[in-house]
Amino acid sequence: MAQKIIALDAMGGDYGPSVTVAAANMALEEIPGIELVLVGDREQLSTELQKHNLQQDRWVRVQHASEVVEMGDLPVVALKKKKDSSMRVAINLVKEGEVQACVSAGNTGALMATGKFVLKTIRGISRPAICTILPGIHGHTHMLDLGANPDCTPEILLEFALMGSILAQSVEGIESPSVGLLNIGSEEIKGNESIKRASQLIRGTRLNYHGFVEGDDVFRGTVNVIVTDGFVGNVSLKTGEGLAALVSHVLRSEFERNWLTRLAGFCALPVLTALKRRLDPRRHNGASLLGLNGIVIKSHGSADTSSFFNAIKIAAIEIENKVPQRISAEIENYFSQAEEAVT
Amino acid sequence: MAQKIIALDAMGGDYGPSVTVAAANMALEEIPGIELVLVGDREQLSTELQKHNLQQDRWVRVQHASEVVEMGDLPVVALKKKKDSSMRVAINLVKEGEVQACVSAGNTGALMATGKFVLKTIRGISRPAICTILPGIHGHTHMLDLGANPDCTPEILLEFALMGSILAQSVEGIESPSVGLLNIGSEEIKGNESIKRASQLIRGTRLNYHGFVEGDDVFRGTVNVIVTDGFVGNVSLKTGEGLAALVSHVLRSEFERNWLTRLAGFCALPVLTALKRRLDPRRHNGASLLGLNGIVIKSHGSADTSSFFNAIKIAAIEIENKVPQRISAEIENYFSQAEEAVT
Repeated sequence: MAQKIIALDAMGGDYGPSVTVAAANMALEEIPGIELVLVGDREQLSTELQKHNLQQDRWVRVQHASEVVEMGDLPVVALKKKKDSSMRVAINLVKEGEVQACVSAGNTGALMATGKFVLKTIRGISRPAICTILPGIHGHTHMLDLGANPDCTPEILLEFALMGSILAQSVEGIESPSVGLLNIGSEEIKGNESIKRASQLIRGTRLNYHGFVEGDDVFRGTVNVIVTDGFVGNVSLKTGEGLAALVSHVLRSEFERNWLTRLAGFCALPVLTALKRRLDPRRHNGASLLGLNGIVIKSHGSADTSSFFNAIKIAAIEIENKVPQRISAEIENYFSQAEEAVT
Repeated sequence: MAQKIIALDAMGGDYGPSVTVAAANMALEEIPGIELVLVGDREQLSTELQKHNLQQDRWVRVQHASEVVEMGDLPVVALKKKKDSSMRVAINLVKEGEVQACVSAGNTGALMATGKFVLKTIRGISRPAICTILPGIHGHTHMLDLGANPDCTPEILLEFALMGSILAQSVEGIESPSVGLLNIGSEEIKGNESIKRASQLIRGTRLNYHGFVEGDDVFRGTVNVIVTDGFVGNVSLKTGEGLAALVSHVLRSEFERNWLTRLAGFCALPVLTALKRRLDPRRHNGASLLGLNGIVIKSHGSADTSSFFNAIKIAAIEIENKVPQRISAEIENYFSQAEEAVT
């Protein structure tokens, strides 16, 4: 198994080292060939390592960083004023080739801004995008962008389609993932001019293009990849979170109604647990910041140990599949084909 | 109780007269002072009326229309080629003042196009919007636009805010409904220039403006009214439908797993029924086409009798509250205040 070296922003997220170091411990046990660099406060991290009976060695070491990016920090503040933050140092390690990927549960805006500033975007890619996996009736869907780019030209949506397809190939092992473009109707005549143009562009590639999909396809698993701008993607993702909260609120209050419903709730517990697991966003934790010269994985801020571990696993999969290199090759290839078509 | 005369597009929807006439019968029994005009094929409607032991009288009468707009008809085809459709004749009756509102379960695009063509928009309103009620943890939310206007300027979003507020006032009886603008973050600095400008405009009105809300506020009931463009609104609404479908799929398959879970499902039946009722979009059936010179209510195509009845009830509430007149007064008032501010 090839070596996979990953830096963890060990201070990020709601729980900091108590979660990140525990997840690191899990990763060392479960992911073959993994080496971890824990970035953050040296003392806190040493104490935490001791709790897990871990010693610094070839497989895990601490890299000191004196600052922490807070959830409320503006991206520009994180970037300019906190040059020794655990997030920044972890990304620097990717840039310097010390590690092959980094994982952070910190502030998304700061992570994206720092990733773009330090690693730069892949040649041919205009904007990096945030891509995550969503559960669905007929299988998972990778959706992008989820908030990095509120406004997107048709050309940018095309780049997202190329990147999302490569990610789904790598993570799910699907040879030719189906790609859908999110619209307000599935017929060709629906939507505004920009979305129609994006559809034409994607149709002109070698991608397995399904055509337009609608909002109700997001949790249906109609396609492997859903492409949309960051405004719509973010609202769609969060609408799903809101509805999941409503479902769990209604179930809780209805099962609490009287002793009979409480008993029924007790009997239905395995089913309710299964439902919770299927809908839990943390189960699919680990969003990819696609389009950077390097692998950066964003974990939910509220991730617990097993879900932060999942984000580390995604980093390992992307290393193994050389995701940035494949995106770079695919985009070069697309442009050279487009050039040929013109000349 | 004041008189309320409503035309029903009795041929529209997946079930046509069998649902619309049954719902009409229900409305005649339950809504005081209601008079109904059933628009559609004279013979079919007479037969259906007989099934309910209804005779044409002051309270219910049939208005013949020889054509039907099909679900697949393009709006322009419905408008230009089917001038004697049940949908068109029902809207004509509103225009001619024969009725005070109409309800249709037909094709949304055709209904909006015909409504705009026949009734025109209220002076000062650039574009009519589709507004519906969504369930939430802390109460209902009226969301608009849901698909009529994929691209919206800040000024159009302001109009939506004014219209949505009046509708929530009328339907929910809230004196000063809270209004939120859908964005990808709740902080003032989030979103694109257009959304920030819309926020400034709405803040300048007398509305009870909450500020930005996010996708997860849609099913939370954070505010009484959520304003967004038709692209985002449509995707958000349908994402919710997709997730609800996933929830019901997971529950069904998990409860079917073995005899123990089947038994648990049987015990939990009242709770599951309550959940289904809370999430069922048909329960809140009846979307308003706001901004037209007249009341037009769109029912789900798949509405059953009680949900089509609900759409008729919304039409009656809008008549009682003179919704178009109040929108007209509010928009005049807004512009005269804006003029005063300038001079």
